Amino acid sequence: MNDKRRKLSEAEIGAAVQPLKGWSVSGGKLRREYKFRDFAEAWGFMTHAALEIHAMDHHPEWSNVYNKVTVELVTHSAGGITPMDVELAGKLEEIAGRLGS
Amino acid sequence: MNDKRRKLSEAEIGAAVQPLKGWSVSGGKLRREYKFRDFAEAWGFMTHAALEIHAMDHHPEWSNVYNKVTVELVTHSAGGITPMDVELAGKLEEIAGRLGS
Repeated sequence: MNDKRRKLSEAEIGAAVQPLKGWSVSGGKLRREYKFRDFAEAWGFMTHAALEIHAMDHHPEWSNVYNKVTVELVTHSAGGITPMDVELAGKLEEIAGRLGS
Repeated sequence: MNDKRRKLSEAEIGAAVQPLKGWSVSGGKLRREYKFRDFAEAWGFMTHAALEIHAMDHHPEWSNVYNKVTVELVTHSAGGITPMDVELAGKLEEIAGRLGS
């Protein structure tokens, strides 16, 4: 099995989430809500994120209402949170950070 | 009050939804799930839709997981479904139709 797609233990998840500000574990998924200035800024975030998502071939469960974007990350094939989810969370943080929000 | 943002009656909603294939009323919102070939096609749909959403200044509650896009439309300021929601549903149909799905 690809090491990046192996299910992390609870301790590993705890350690991985710790530096990811705003992220928590909810219902067995990594979860964060982002709030932007308006729809255009939220869409800018999602559009940049979509490029990374496509490149990684690892897809979030995400929703948008106006300036809010809620992201949930889990690897269904592994039955839990994997290094891929942690990596994508880190990329989303980097993208959101560039927007200065 | 702007006529486009007035709450429609149940009979009006029924008549409005009837020609909108795949749409239904669920929890007081217009709702449809779209299924595309893959993430890229789903994202193409969302990107085109985002332009219309921004132009209308009327925002859906929508979510995406890989090739699926779920859309819910309601006008919170009116406390229900309005002509704006019906109009946006029609535009989404047109956009999805162009993708041949």
